[in-house]
Amino acid sequence: MRKFITFEGVDGSGKSTQAKLLADYLSRSGNKVFLTREPGEGRLGELIRTEILDRKDISIDPYAELCLFCADRAQHVRELILPKLRDGYTVICDRYYDSTLAYQGSGREIDPDLVHRMATASSLGVEPDITFFLSIPVPQALLRLEGRQKEKNRMDEESSEFHRRVDEGYRHLIGKKIPRIKVIEATVSPGEIHMEIRGFFGEL
Amino acid sequence: MRKFITFEGVDGSGKSTQAKLLADYLSRSGNKVFLTREPGEGRLGELIRTEILDRKDISIDPYAELCLFCADRAQHVRELILPKLRDGYTVICDRYYDSTLAYQGSGREIDPDLVHRMATASSLGVEPDITFFLSIPVPQALLRLEGRQKEKNRMDEESSEFHRRVDEGYRHLIGKKIPRIKVIEATVSPGEIHMEIRGFFGEL
Repeated sequence: MRKFITFEGVDGSGKSTQAKLLADYLSRSGNKVFLTREPGEGRLGELIRTEILDRKDISIDPYAELCLFCADRAQHVRELILPKLRDGYTVICDRYYDSTLAYQGSGREIDPDLVHRMATASSLGVEPDITFFLSIPVPQALLRLEGRQKEKNRMDEESSEFHRRVDEGYRHLIGKKIPRIKVIEATVSPGEIHMEIRGFFGEL
Repeated sequence: MRKFITFEGVDGSGKSTQAKLLADYLSRSGNKVFLTREPGEGRLGELIRTEILDRKDISIDPYAELCLFCADRAQHVRELILPKLRDGYTVICDRYYDSTLAYQGSGREIDPDLVHRMATASSLGVEPDITFFLSIPVPQALLRLEGRQKEKNRMDEESSEFHRRVDEGYRHLIGKKIPRIKVIEATVSPGEIHMEIRGFFGEL
């Protein structure tokens, strides 16, 4: 049984829906499941999300933003992810360090080597067992985002050029053929995507 | 005329007093002076200080702490230090990236190479012209801190072993003979220290 599962993809790719569907499925199958997301779980993370990332009245330096996401992750791992894994939970996380590589490294164009080292350090050595990358063309993801004005965060407000670079960052990562990363075709219906993801867990 | 001046040293070394005395002196001599400190100036910095660093009810992961100090600095440079330097001010900053090397690298024992890269990146390329390191034996600095219960922050609450490692970090830096760093004997009176510092500015 896979223990630490992460979901990745551009906003609008359906990650959150799929993370929830998988959490429900694994729970129903008798697993203890902890569903979480980045940024913003844990006390520090919550402060970072509500007081900084969700505010549109302050302009954040790209490197400062990178640091905040990494601070959030380290604290998230220490406060929640690691204790839950130790307690025997399957942890499902909506975004993890691959997001930092794609958004801050590629999207914000910060030195990829520095971003890679910082993102790795922010995991405190806790690596996902499996990562589902939901693959969807950027224009289609952006169209989906149009529909949810209320939930928009500072990333969603970025230019389509930014989202194109983020996608390119993910594609570069996928090109490395890292065994834990599974590319899932995400242009089909949520139910179909979920069934494909289930396939990775065999009989439960 | 030196334009960007930083003060370094363990807590209790008298940095803040000396930064203030120098700012007053340079102002009286007709310079436009901007006195600032780390962490915590600028809007993001203020949030980090009040909501996170000054709180003793949350436990912060060492790497998360490093990230927060670097986020604070990058934002401080972008929002305040750089604009003031461009406007012709002499900027005096109480702590800058050397503090990150000493406190997070040496004090918290995080990979020195990673700390160095992150601290350097956090300056956005803005290097001090001159840095005064106030040299004082750690036990003497700790005795001074005893007297100011009210102002204690989370660093001041650390063990004397932590402060010894911070001092060692500073000494290691000084050992590199970086020309901008001037070691000032800080066991004498504030007036004497100030006069020695003044000596670096010649006739104004």
